[in-house]
Amino acid sequence: MALGCRQGGRWCSRVPLGRPVLRRRRPLAAQEVDAGFPVRPYAVAGGGEAAAGEELLEVCWRRHFLRGCAEPRPWRAYLSGCHPGFGPLGAGLRANLEAQWWDSALAFREQVLAVDAPFHSPLAAGYPPTGQSLLLLRSETLREALRAGLPVEEVLGSAGVLRESLLPGALAQYLNCLELVNKRLPCGLAQIGVCFHSIPESEQHNKNLRRIGERTTSLLAWFSSPRTAGQWLDYWLRQRLQWWRKFAVGPSNFSSSDFQDEEGRRGFNLHYAFPWGTETIETLKNLGDTELLQMYPGNSSKLFGRDGRKNVIPHVLSVSGNLDRGVLAYLFDSLQLAENPLTKKTTSQRKVLKLHPCLAPIKVALDVGKGPTTELRQVCQGLFNELSENRISVWPGYLETVQVSLEQLYAKYDEMSILFMVLITDATLESGVVQLRSRDTTMKEMMHISRLKDFLTKYVISAKNV
Amino acid sequence: MALGCRQGGRWCSRVPLGRPVLRRRRPLAAQEVDAGFPVRPYAVAGGGEAAAGEELLEVCWRRHFLRGCAEPRPWRAYLSGCHPGFGPLGAGLRANLEAQWWDSALAFREQVLAVDAPFHSPLAAGYPPTGQSLLLLRSETLREALRAGLPVEEVLGSAGVLRESLLPGALAQYLNCLELVNKRLPCGLAQIGVCFHSIPESEQHNKNLRRIGERTTSLLAWFSSPRTAGQWLDYWLRQRLQWWRKFAVGPSNFSSSDFQDEEGRRGFNLHYAFPWGTETIETLKNLGDTELLQMYPGNSSKLFGRDGRKNVIPHVLSVSGNLDRGVLAYLFDSLQLAENPLTKKTTSQRKVLKLHPCLAPIKVALDVGKGPTTELRQVCQGLFNELSENRISVWPGYLETVQVSLEQLYAKYDEMSILFMVLITDATLESGVVQLRSRDTTMKEMMHISRLKDFLTKYVISAKNV
Repeated sequence: MALGCRQGGRWCSRVPLGRPVLRRRRPLAAQEVDAGFPVRPYAVAGGGEAAAGEELLEVCWRRHFLRGCAEPRPWRAYLSGCHPGFGPLGAGLRANLEAQWWDSALAFREQVLAVDAPFHSPLAAGYPPTGQSLLLLRSETLREALRAGLPVEEVLGSAGVLRESLLPGALAQYLNCLELVNKRLPCGLAQIGVCFHSIPESEQHNKNLRRIGERTTSLLAWFSSPRTAGQWLDYWLRQRLQWWRKFAVGPSNFSSSDFQDEEGRRGFNLHYAFPWGTETIETLKNLGDTELLQMYPGNSSKLFGRDGRKNVIPHVLSVSGNLDRGVLAYLFDSLQLAENPLTKKTTSQRKVLKLHPCLAPIKVALDVGKGPTTELRQVCQGLFNELSENRISVWPGYLETVQVSLEQLYAKYDEMSILFMVLITDATLESGVVQLRSRDTTMKEMMHISRLKDFLTKYVISAKNV
Repeated sequence: MALGCRQGGRWCSRVPLGRPVLRRRRPLAAQEVDAGFPVRPYAVAGGGEAAAGEELLEVCWRRHFLRGCAEPRPWRAYLSGCHPGFGPLGAGLRANLEAQWWDSALAFREQVLAVDAPFHSPLAAGYPPTGQSLLLLRSETLREALRAGLPVEEVLGSAGVLRESLLPGALAQYLNCLELVNKRLPCGLAQIGVCFHSIPESEQHNKNLRRIGERTTSLLAWFSSPRTAGQWLDYWLRQRLQWWRKFAVGPSNFSSSDFQDEEGRRGFNLHYAFPWGTETIETLKNLGDTELLQMYPGNSSKLFGRDGRKNVIPHVLSVSGNLDRGVLAYLFDSLQLAENPLTKKTTSQRKVLKLHPCLAPIKVALDVGKGPTTELRQVCQGLFNELSENRISVWPGYLETVQVSLEQLYAKYDEMSILFMVLITDATLESGVVQLRSRDTTMKEMMHISRLKDFLTKYVISAKNV
């Protein structure tokens, strides 16, 4: 069963005349879904999943956005971070998402510093492990401990613990960074890195699924005067929701809900409406000064930042996203079905991944048409070098030796979400003109080869500023 | 005792007239040091270290290239990856080094794909852990195992193992990626990621040092026909050595030595000559097809790549660098001593970190001189936005509220390795002219504010192409 059955063709009515009719596989909008807070972490309702995402999953495997493996993994495995990793195209998509995150966290912000922290810390640091903590120890240490029946405490003394969040590592740098920003508030620390989490037994539907998940996490730790912390929370909520929506075909599938933790601290979850329900992709929380005071016990005056003329211990906002889930959200968001021009049958719909131009891992494919092979290849190689030197990612389709029709190439590149296909033919050798075919409009136009670089650069930049 | 005592002032003779005399703290050149192969991993000769690097260490802490902590760590801790991580400036330096690595691995190469892989894998995958393997298990699993005295094998069944190298993860993607490059050889897989290693007991000089190290690793796995694998090894050796030297003040401190492993497989280590001796920063090795055949047991015909018209099982070259050590190498490489213009005494030498313009984490600092504060600030903020939008990293010195002299500012920025300081004064408000002071020449020149962006961009690009 295909997801397409569920959707009412609203997308069609928005498509301007003269463009091919696209039927978007619209997942249920946020408001149509029981938001079901608190959102289940790393778990997915069983029923709809198989039907909903299978087709997309298959495209993602075929086009190397996701890595398949011997036995197919369900979306649940990808959501929970228990999968063999992204394929090259998925890794490229996530790298672009990370770059956009950095742009939004650092640009125009004088007081945000990018930081780095170790993946593990010694257990001695005064944080006794919980049952779910992920311990790190040498194989021989474990063997000896089991052989000798050592007490737990002694074994823990030589163990490390893997990070489950970027926050402690960032807070540990607060003092150093406070000095760098002249103790002026507000200021922020930004980081992207992988964190680990253990999967509760109850969610291990399959014995072969891993019990430990990994996720690429973004963190902005924002330090502000207690007076303005509430306003900043609202500011960042707006800013983050806007950011997620900016790259989406269906912005309304990104939504938010608020919560309070046991200590009454306010926060927001940002969700994406997957076909099987909403899943959290980012969490914002006003932590107050609790964690900061815990991290630096003793003389708290060294924590003082300046709020105008006053010295205050700042409140901490944590803005933490799961960029791997973000990648999955944009994959679902981008999938569209178009009529197959070869067959005109709805049963063989063409699939297009309409990833935002900033996020698409490959911007342009180069292919050769009719003409002398050697010369055309040389033109392609020159163009490949020029474009990749300018950090435009290129797909060297001209290296393909198996002859396929142009329609088959378009279909392949649409699934790979490549923005443009450039066709180099003997006309290029004569007049310098190439054919440019657009993923989004399927229109073809002729362009002089010397204009390509500027055209592509401006296309991506202007897509971002819309 | 200062490192400077050791050096013979060769640097001085190369300095052109008219520039301030710089005395470079030249570490012993590679040829002066007993290469002492095999290079001791994660260990440093005891004697010279304290004397050699202390002064640099102090600058790196003060300027947040490295993170200090309660008790000072020796260089050994940083070399072995057992330290609290880099500070914001060190993290910026490493990010720039990573970007340069990607440029060199991907640019102009049609057949190199960037890949990604998980940090851990289940132990069940058929690789029994060695004594040094880093196991990952839930705290409660360990507690239960110790309480119940479970056999090791049963505990291992639920454990994961952390990666110690990027190679297995890359090889696991060979088949997928082979399809993406049309089975054409040579091709490559590139990745940067953190790997883990345990520190042998014998090298744990200090009980408080961590026993598990982390290092940011770069990997290029290069698949070529067996016929050309030897030539490719030589090609990559040249290419990689050239790459390290390109960003160095003293290129000759980067050197190489060859080796053969137990199975007679050829390889090269690339070293940097630290003051206490050489340390390996990258290793190239011709692995043959052993690891590939191990990874894909059974029908080996699926491994075939095309070498012209022949189908062959490729040989694998592994080119793997330690970018954290690379950062340390460039910090040592870049340290220079200049006369202190305030005192003219050699005892209070000014320290300059002359990091390559591509690597320097901050390109320009903006400061205000005499004039109306509010208006000058506005100019600075506009400039900050313009430059950071163009991905030029800016230090907002104008936010500093403590008055310091220009000489003190220069000294601070030289230690931070900031390429230029821009001074905005009332002259800027009148005529749009700013003063630009260079880290490397200490010369000042006037420039129209509208030219700054282009000047800085071109300065960094042209430094790279020298």
